[in-house]
Amino acid sequence: MTDLGAKVGASVGADVQGADIRAAMAEVVGAGQVLTGDRITEDYCHDEALSMPAQRPAMVVRPASAAEVSAVLRVASAHRLPVTARGSGSGLSGAAIPEPGGLVISLERMNRVLEIDVHNHVAVVQPGLTLAELDEATAAHGLTYPVYPGELSSSLGGNVATNAGGMRAVRYGVTRNQVLGLEAVLPTGEVIRTGGKLAKTSTGYDLTQLIIGSEGTLAVVTEATLRLYPRPPHQATVLAPFHTVDEVARAVPNVVHSGVAPLILEYIDGFTMGAITHSQQLDLGVPTEIKEKAQAYLLVMLESGHAERLDEDTEQLGGLLTELGAIEVYVLPGSSARRLVEAREKAFWTSKAAGAHDIIDTVVPRAAIPEFLAIAAEIAQRHGSMVFGCGHAGDGNVHLAVFQADDQVRSAMLRELFEACMKLGGLISGEHGIGRAKKRYFLELTDPATIALMRRIKTAFDPEGILNPTVLLES
Amino acid sequence: MTDLGAKVGASVGADVQGADIRAAMAEVVGAGQVLTGDRITEDYCHDEALSMPAQRPAMVVRPASAAEVSAVLRVASAHRLPVTARGSGSGLSGAAIPEPGGLVISLERMNRVLEIDVHNHVAVVQPGLTLAELDEATAAHGLTYPVYPGELSSSLGGNVATNAGGMRAVRYGVTRNQVLGLEAVLPTGEVIRTGGKLAKTSTGYDLTQLIIGSEGTLAVVTEATLRLYPRPPHQATVLAPFHTVDEVARAVPNVVHSGVAPLILEYIDGFTMGAITHSQQLDLGVPTEIKEKAQAYLLVMLESGHAERLDEDTEQLGGLLTELGAIEVYVLPGSSARRLVEAREKAFWTSKAAGAHDIIDTVVPRAAIPEFLAIAAEIAQRHGSMVFGCGHAGDGNVHLAVFQADDQVRSAMLRELFEACMKLGGLISGEHGIGRAKKRYFLELTDPATIALMRRIKTAFDPEGILNPTVLLES
Repeated sequence: MTDLGAKVGASVGADVQGADIRAAMAEVVGAGQVLTGDRITEDYCHDEALSMPAQRPAMVVRPASAAEVSAVLRVASAHRLPVTARGSGSGLSGAAIPEPGGLVISLERMNRVLEIDVHNHVAVVQPGLTLAELDEATAAHGLTYPVYPGELSSSLGGNVATNAGGMRAVRYGVTRNQVLGLEAVLPTGEVIRTGGKLAKTSTGYDLTQLIIGSEGTLAVVTEATLRLYPRPPHQATVLAPFHTVDEVARAVPNVVHSGVAPLILEYIDGFTMGAITHSQQLDLGVPTEIKEKAQAYLLVMLESGHAERLDEDTEQLGGLLTELGAIEVYVLPGSSARRLVEAREKAFWTSKAAGAHDIIDTVVPRAAIPEFLAIAAEIAQRHGSMVFGCGHAGDGNVHLAVFQADDQVRSAMLRELFEACMKLGGLISGEHGIGRAKKRYFLELTDPATIALMRRIKTAFDPEGILNPTVLLES
Repeated sequence: MTDLGAKVGASVGADVQGADIRAAMAEVVGAGQVLTGDRITEDYCHDEALSMPAQRPAMVVRPASAAEVSAVLRVASAHRLPVTARGSGSGLSGAAIPEPGGLVISLERMNRVLEIDVHNHVAVVQPGLTLAELDEATAAHGLTYPVYPGELSSSLGGNVATNAGGMRAVRYGVTRNQVLGLEAVLPTGEVIRTGGKLAKTSTGYDLTQLIIGSEGTLAVVTEATLRLYPRPPHQATVLAPFHTVDEVARAVPNVVHSGVAPLILEYIDGFTMGAITHSQQLDLGVPTEIKEKAQAYLLVMLESGHAERLDEDTEQLGGLLTELGAIEVYVLPGSSARRLVEAREKAFWTSKAAGAHDIIDTVVPRAAIPEFLAIAAEIAQRHGSMVFGCGHAGDGNVHLAVFQADDQVRSAMLRELFEACMKLGGLISGEHGIGRAKKRYFLELTDPATIALMRRIKTAFDPEGILNPTVLLES
């Protein structure tokens, strides 16, 4: 094992012995929780960003508490070892890919529900807990944590790091709107607590919100206090094919304004609908002649505590969609609805299987979706590429699978897409984050004063620059 | 006028001529918009914090644009002149009181609604606009901005600075949940834009959220993009007297859990109810024998787009409150309801008129309200003081009027109150902010690592420390 130790040492400077670092880490977390060499499995070397290569770290540690995370970070700070915190590794922007010669802090052992507080409607959880596990724990109390970013194996820590969104954000908001407090460890080892089981606070700067979405560059989250909601018992799902994507996109603000308060409001283009229903072997009963006419679909789910109110709202929604030009309006039976939503959640995997070279998730003002989609189609065509997609239409969050094998052409095209999105008042990412995959565009297209300010904030948290140093802000 | 110029000069160092600063400011905003001496009216010298003395600034400037704010801040930076941004001056924590010898940037001329965007459901506003003016503008489109912090003359800029809350936060959340984007000027003069007409973003650190609630210490907000909602046409108001405050507080989580989604969920203790109804000459028709038994009241307002659903929910709520021990349940007629809500909004003025020496707005987990109120009563009694109050029960936000003329006794008591609140998982302020009035307690009771981090963040924005330097963080 000495060669592996030497390898670690080499990466952090000749004066530091890798074996020393390993010994120091072993003292903190126990020798069995320090992985080097062959014990570092492939899983630790990548996330799900399509365009980013995997990278083997020098070492993985698996702490069991905030105190251990703190001690690990003190050792890392002392040796200026680059550190990547890791949850489930299901991120799409490369922010959980290790640094060369770096340390991975895997939070897989910190995966408990610490408390479901039914009086305050909050859950207190550890970062390694998955959404699926939390869903099970809250369901037992008739409560729900409403962030469903598609990948239920994703960890709450990862959700906080990327400000994860998903289909239900149009009703409940994103991770940022649910996290009431955090315990987090600064790279210098101090453990801080922010917020609490509190609906609101105006007591100093909101460090909770600053850490959310910071993609592992400011602090390592070791506990989160999350808002829960009553779990309404009744749901209805409506699928409406339209002649054009444009018509679908134009229907969206009307649905939002109608007051039916959709739980889900998704658009799916015809190509993507074909792909996801095919891959999931799902027959929705849409006749072929309608499929042939439908360039895009609107998928709307409603929920309510009252069955009869749900029926009324569903009827109102159906009438509205017909007025707005839907070719037909289908109320899907529960089983088909569930399978379609699952298939939509798996759209990323379908795109990946279909050979997409990248996935982006630009966000624009929701009324600008038609214009953005038209511009995106034009840009893609001009670059001899294809883009297909679906998206959280109620949020203006457009997910596009990009098919263009040539890295340079794809990169030029993405830059144009992001620039066009920003001209419409949008931003590069709605929920996936910038990470490494979109960093170049972010740094090029964002006002330099804003980047400089973010870098000063980074330094305020992380003076040695050890936390995810090449993510987000490094040029 | 030279003596006034000299006065300005004296306050910023002997090497700087006050007349020079005045001339530089006049060049930016026009001589008529630079006030010194007698032209600085009393209004510019204070906010509404009960325990803080007024302070005359050396100069007031009234810029008309972000470009002017930027130029003003560059001059201030060059001369290290302390700067206080001012909206309506209705704050309760002393954060808008000028610094001795300092500069006030009054945003009163930047008071326009720049846009009501009905497709994206957002308003774009300038910081000097008042809530009352915004309410008028949104009502014309059947939309509403749902933050009602009681004082409708308060400015949107001030609301952003304090993260203002109010009675409707239990349904819609606070200012933090409504602000989608900002234009803000850094003390060094750079104008940055954050967020946009976007329901969500994961594109770098959330500077929007960091600036919200920062009480004028990080940047001067020159524009805000705010989320609007459909304005439901139907409202119902229920008033329920209970035998004890404890019973009221225990009813709150049950009402939240019931799914009726109250728009307002307030508790009002018997003393405060007597005072506000008396001061507003409001007769709610509650018989004397019930008033005599009622130590506290729960005030619940519901809203809906459907009249019949509202009736059903009101009936359900009435049944629930009776089960939970309400002595009686009154559905108030619209006019009484409106007047009671207005009277509750004016509770601060009622307390002030009654001679309260301070007002605090601690926030605790909502299920901890009964315990906190019991502890608060005990602490007050032990110090020979009185505390009465009301609060946003659904948010755990307890507003107490404190009657204790002796500064030292009051201060010792407040420290105990805040400490007790924090032991219950609470924080010092839910919506008023720390400002100067609660700074001492905040600095004493908050973990030093957190304070040190906030100070580094302050420096990242404001290296010269010119923005509200003695607010929040200065020891």
